[in-house]
Amino acid sequence: METSVLKFGGTSVGDFDKIKDIAGELQSRVSRGEKLIVVVSAMGGMTDELLRNASRLSSAPKEDHVALLLTTGEQQTISYLSIVLEDLGVCTKAMTGYQAGIKTFGGHMKSRIADIDEKRLKETLEIHDVIVIAGFQGINDDLEITTLGRGGSDTTAVAIAARCGMPCEIYTDVDGVYTTDPRVYGAASRIHEITYDEMMEMSALGAGVLETRCVEIAKNHAIPLYLGRTLSEEKGTWIMQDTQVLERKAVTGAALDSDIIHVTLYEPQKESTLIFDLFEKFEKHDINIDMISQVVNSEGFQLSFTVKDADSYRLDEIFEAVGHMHPEMMLDARTTRSKVSIIGSGMRDMTGVASKAFRALQAAGIPFYQTTTSEISISYVVDSVNDKQAVEVLATAFEL
Amino acid sequence: METSVLKFGGTSVGDFDKIKDIAGELQSRVSRGEKLIVVVSAMGGMTDELLRNASRLSSAPKEDHVALLLTTGEQQTISYLSIVLEDLGVCTKAMTGYQAGIKTFGGHMKSRIADIDEKRLKETLEIHDVIVIAGFQGINDDLEITTLGRGGSDTTAVAIAARCGMPCEIYTDVDGVYTTDPRVYGAASRIHEITYDEMMEMSALGAGVLETRCVEIAKNHAIPLYLGRTLSEEKGTWIMQDTQVLERKAVTGAALDSDIIHVTLYEPQKESTLIFDLFEKFEKHDINIDMISQVVNSEGFQLSFTVKDADSYRLDEIFEAVGHMHPEMMLDARTTRSKVSIIGSGMRDMTGVASKAFRALQAAGIPFYQTTTSEISISYVVDSVNDKQAVEVLATAFEL
Repeated sequence: METSVLKFGGTSVGDFDKIKDIAGELQSRVSRGEKLIVVVSAMGGMTDELLRNASRLSSAPKEDHVALLLTTGEQQTISYLSIVLEDLGVCTKAMTGYQAGIKTFGGHMKSRIADIDEKRLKETLEIHDVIVIAGFQGINDDLEITTLGRGGSDTTAVAIAARCGMPCEIYTDVDGVYTTDPRVYGAASRIHEITYDEMMEMSALGAGVLETRCVEIAKNHAIPLYLGRTLSEEKGTWIMQDTQVLERKAVTGAALDSDIIHVTLYEPQKESTLIFDLFEKFEKHDINIDMISQVVNSEGFQLSFTVKDADSYRLDEIFEAVGHMHPEMMLDARTTRSKVSIIGSGMRDMTGVASKAFRALQAAGIPFYQTTTSEISISYVVDSVNDKQAVEVLATAFEL
Repeated sequence: METSVLKFGGTSVGDFDKIKDIAGELQSRVSRGEKLIVVVSAMGGMTDELLRNASRLSSAPKEDHVALLLTTGEQQTISYLSIVLEDLGVCTKAMTGYQAGIKTFGGHMKSRIADIDEKRLKETLEIHDVIVIAGFQGINDDLEITTLGRGGSDTTAVAIAARCGMPCEIYTDVDGVYTTDPRVYGAASRIHEITYDEMMEMSALGAGVLETRCVEIAKNHAIPLYLGRTLSEEKGTWIMQDTQVLERKAVTGAALDSDIIHVTLYEPQKESTLIFDLFEKFEKHDINIDMISQVVNSEGFQLSFTVKDADSYRLDEIFEAVGHMHPEMMLDARTTRSKVSIIGSGMRDMTGVASKAFRALQAAGIPFYQTTTSEISISYVVDSVNDKQAVEVLATAFEL
């Protein structure tokens, strides 16, 4: 008996016709002998509508009450899909997060999954063809309904797949993972197989198709993960272990993140508490910083890093406070820069990737202001006016 | 510490302004030192909309999936009301049916309450001012979400009150219980105190303000039950024990049920299995019959009873089937008749009520075709053209 976990996002279940189309596809898979666990999101637009309602009622609605409200969206989708599936003769069980035993911990609106009632799911699948589960939600130790935060339904699906030892197929409105964003580089091609590590780097570096956390769960439990377009014949992308990927290239993909601020701080002292003072403030405000480089030379201390544009509203306050403590500090923060990255697990054992990338950018006359590397990626800070060209140059150099 | 259970129906929470008004009223009661358990229905119209959606997706949607769908309505109301209450500084906990430990048994869409987690409610009320609970819903032993059927939210409120030993106030769009329907008899007056038994008879006989089942629960646990208009200064009706009602009259109210079919069957045989054959069919089709009278005289066997108009679509089929088994049976079924009743627990120990009522109808020239009595009520079948006049005559005779 073949069993899989499938996930359909909000646009895939955006109206009743789409729900019927998905039900038809599930029916045909069931008729071929499959048993399926299907995780669904709220119908497109519903979560936003509920959030708007909450804001109409209070400028600062309490998170536990908002989580309780939002989860009705997914509960309606599982009801609707189950009604259609039964109408097609598919024996279906619908489950909310609580009913599927999805225990969570952490804040009401960014909870993490602690446990899933695998036994209940497997027993239910013995007497049903399909279980339809509400994504994005769970219940905490106080019996309070929680939501999982960004990419929550993907996490629900992958966590269930991990717990039950099944492959996980995530259906969305993109048809797979591309070597780089096709809107940035028209010649980008779809990747049919990619390793967990590469996918995690790509997600972390701005290729926003899957949350890093989902890929991490899949990796930790060695669950094959598929990403493709809903009801499409096109072959999407399988994300899998290193050893399962047949053809490996040094560089698998390139990512562009334009929404960054590039910050450089100088202080003439060679011994400085600047890093400590600054990072403490970032941590306090829950701001992530990235691409950290620090050097001490004859002219003093220099620190560079990038921050997400979305966090900019806090930066002025932080820099002002740190400036008071470090009066000689000089600050250079630019929103006109972007981060361009290349990713490939082949970098681990193939040499020359870095030098090839440097040469390509140089030959194209694209200046870069900072470079950082991880085990399987290299990132460059470039001027935003050049960022798409930089992606093109790198994509061409590595035949992406 | 004064604690009460309050219930607000669908029209009372029909839009966000109404929800805010109710929150304001709750806030002022909390500021006077009260702690409250508040049961709410789905916002007016929402349940119907969800039911329509279910019908669009399937001509026969499965009840468990429909129950799951409908309960999102109340879950949204408790979220909204809790958001507003917190915004007003009222420490509020929202609970769905299963979070309140409302265990049910029976069909998914007409479940009955088996148990309530009194301990959890009382502990929660220790650290919160208000608990807002989703009415109409619970969870069964298989962890499936269920709904309670007609008048379900009232039942939720009364059952919680009964379990926790608190009075229960039901707020709706009528301002209390009347001696008879003011639309039928303009001079009808509001009853400020009525006994459980009288209220149950009134509900059963067609005064559709409260389900009999709710009153029964209140009676069994001696919980004072209030019925009044939402946010009205007008004093509504307290439903309470016999001994608590100060001023007792022989007849407390009159009820009219125009939506009946009056059926009389004859068979020349004195010994007949007609009753058995017929009632078996009624039971099989889950049809309630009322006002059953049966006589055997020299002309044979005669059976009269009333059936709700709503069940008429099954009657032809039943009578045809029974007619085949009893070829000499004669049938007289009339939709042009109504049932008029007078109710009063004073009938138990005050004599002359029946004869006074008979005389009043006779004096007014209103013929009646059948009479049945219970311990605290008398019902008459009259022609529908006379039914309002009959109510008036009786209301005048007993000074209602």
